[in-house]
Amino acid sequence: MSAEAIYFDHNATTALDSRVLEAMLPHLRNQQGNPTSRHSFGRAARQAIDLAREQVAAAVGAHPSQVTFTSGGTEANNMAIKGIAATHTPSQVIVSATEHPAVSRPAQSLLGRGWKMAKAGVGDDGRIDLNALATLLQQKTALVSVMTANNETGVLQDIPAIAELAHRYGSLLHTDAVQALGKIELDFNALGANAMSLSGHKINGPQGVGALILDKRVDLQPLLEGGGQEKGLRSGTENIAAIVGFGLACELAKRELARHAERISVLRKQFEAGLAELGATVFGQDAARLPNTSFFALPNIEGETLVMALDRQGYAVASGSACSSDSIEPSHVLLAMGVAPEIARGAVRVSLGARNTAAEVESLLQTLKNEQLRMKRMAAVAV
Amino acid sequence: MSAEAIYFDHNATTALDSRVLEAMLPHLRNQQGNPTSRHSFGRAARQAIDLAREQVAAAVGAHPSQVTFTSGGTEANNMAIKGIAATHTPSQVIVSATEHPAVSRPAQSLLGRGWKMAKAGVGDDGRIDLNALATLLQQKTALVSVMTANNETGVLQDIPAIAELAHRYGSLLHTDAVQALGKIELDFNALGANAMSLSGHKINGPQGVGALILDKRVDLQPLLEGGGQEKGLRSGTENIAAIVGFGLACELAKRELARHAERISVLRKQFEAGLAELGATVFGQDAARLPNTSFFALPNIEGETLVMALDRQGYAVASGSACSSDSIEPSHVLLAMGVAPEIARGAVRVSLGARNTAAEVESLLQTLKNEQLRMKRMAAVAV
Repeated sequence: MSAEAIYFDHNATTALDSRVLEAMLPHLRNQQGNPTSRHSFGRAARQAIDLAREQVAAAVGAHPSQVTFTSGGTEANNMAIKGIAATHTPSQVIVSATEHPAVSRPAQSLLGRGWKMAKAGVGDDGRIDLNALATLLQQKTALVSVMTANNETGVLQDIPAIAELAHRYGSLLHTDAVQALGKIELDFNALGANAMSLSGHKINGPQGVGALILDKRVDLQPLLEGGGQEKGLRSGTENIAAIVGFGLACELAKRELARHAERISVLRKQFEAGLAELGATVFGQDAARLPNTSFFALPNIEGETLVMALDRQGYAVASGSACSSDSIEPSHVLLAMGVAPEIARGAVRVSLGARNTAAEVESLLQTLKNEQLRMKRMAAVAV
Repeated sequence: MSAEAIYFDHNATTALDSRVLEAMLPHLRNQQGNPTSRHSFGRAARQAIDLAREQVAAAVGAHPSQVTFTSGGTEANNMAIKGIAATHTPSQVIVSATEHPAVSRPAQSLLGRGWKMAKAGVGDDGRIDLNALATLLQQKTALVSVMTANNETGVLQDIPAIAELAHRYGSLLHTDAVQALGKIELDFNALGANAMSLSGHKINGPQGVGALILDKRVDLQPLLEGGGQEKGLRSGTENIAAIVGFGLACELAKRELARHAERISVLRKQFEAGLAELGATVFGQDAARLPNTSFFALPNIEGETLVMALDRQGYAVASGSACSSDSIEPSHVLLAMGVAPEIARGAVRVSLGARNTAAEVESLLQTLKNEQLRMKRMAAVAV
């Protein structure tokens, strides 16, 4: 890893905010204290967790009692989908066609246990087709899961409308809000979802921690059973330092959201203006999107090739989604949006973060331009 | 939490070793890099995880490819039991009567899905009754789960003999070795188990990380599904700093085991000699035990009362097991050993750690003696 490399992959993971690390350090230096224990060490650990629970709740307009800490977004998603399914007679579960695998795979795992799964299609802007969803809901459906913001394109779904629709048909709604947290306003009650997944490391908080926000009317079978921590919903000794860090990261994300979003929007506008000059396609460009994400393709350049070329020149960007980049299949998100596979293979994601600057964006654009020229020359030589 | 409080609750959680924290800090200060990402940041994260996997494997005589990182011991136990059950036709699962709830509750959760659960009884020394286990195994059994060392009493099970018996009847064996790691020699192959759970925070490593060691012949359905990390066995962005810390904690535990175990044994001998003078019962005293654990009762003193009294005087000890201390039921471990409930209610656990000293043990003994006298006087006044 070159010290000078510029990081443009904030939808994959983010740096830990130094204030968050400072808050975690006392709990790391003095880890003693299992919150379940009744002695002084145990009580101190318990108080730290209580504060973090309030911070997380406040960041998303929830009540602290609705917050269950998990080991991350993937666990929260698996817990919601498998846990809700386990308390319902098998029927149908609907997920959007653009979900992260941490939602679609647990949904698929229900098949063979008497469950059916349907995928709700999206339009070419990446937004879910509400009429198609209504048609799917005519079959008895225990649970619908639609992400608040897509990890690849940044496209936002109309969660309040989807919640209203799901509830009209007697279904629960879960939303994976891992990418939305810290980038747009997020209010659990206003969204109308019954369950919402969050993650620490996407908001300059620590890895290894997340939360499931749960409407208390939802009956859910725990995924991790044991000592009965988190009111029996999630057993396992609490990861105190990570929970404390996640709490503060949520508080900071909420406090700094407006300023952060505005600053990032300006950088993204600069970047996409430059992309337009290079003849790039920006996927989902006309939909409401997260302010930090550009998922794009340059004509006749493989995304994978471009990612590697940029990496050699000191720029960290992603092709497809980081979480499934072991795969060389074109992005399922783009295919669901009707993008042709040969165009989808060109997809590269730039996701901006709080530390990126206009100069970095300019230098990335210049590098993209040079790469494009270099590849055109190579193609000309090959002919 | 008083700064001077003395910690005698190392089976609940331990302080993070300063060397482990030092190894984690670069990954916390520079968290950027999702190991699934292909750029330089991602590759650096991947290398750190690979090293930790080798360290964990080496500590327990396993191959690195047998190590799957989890969020802790509870997840490893749930993953083993639910994951193995999901790939088998429902039959029977057997757990020992003294398992931690992180094993017995996932086993119970299988009931109602066509599974039966049986509890293998223990003798009054806490050791599993192999004849009774053999009788239970005459019913078709997919999985047996018996802990290597008990968290409350420290009593060790004869895992090689239990593995041999389980295999003779065509069953798999899982062992929860969370309490054994770092306190006794642990060799996955010599134990003969097919799956083994480990945890970081019991060995002066970080909270929020553990591992499931898996015999590769075992077919297992993942509990957390998504991005396909850990070869698809455990999805979710890796908690890199915690994994790095766990790796080093395993290496240190192995390197320092002999010296640590000898030192702790001497302290425990000192402590139990003092307990004998106070007329205490030490549960499982005649069985092979972990070198650091004394689970005992003083005559006519409630364990809960004694824990609180010691806490006020600056000693952190546990009553029953920390992980279920929200409960006021007498320890299920002691009841399974045939201890009368009125005696079991007196149980207090002292679990020694690397930093405890002979002076601390002496001072704890003196305090216990004073408490005993004080309570005797109060009882006399009450009569």
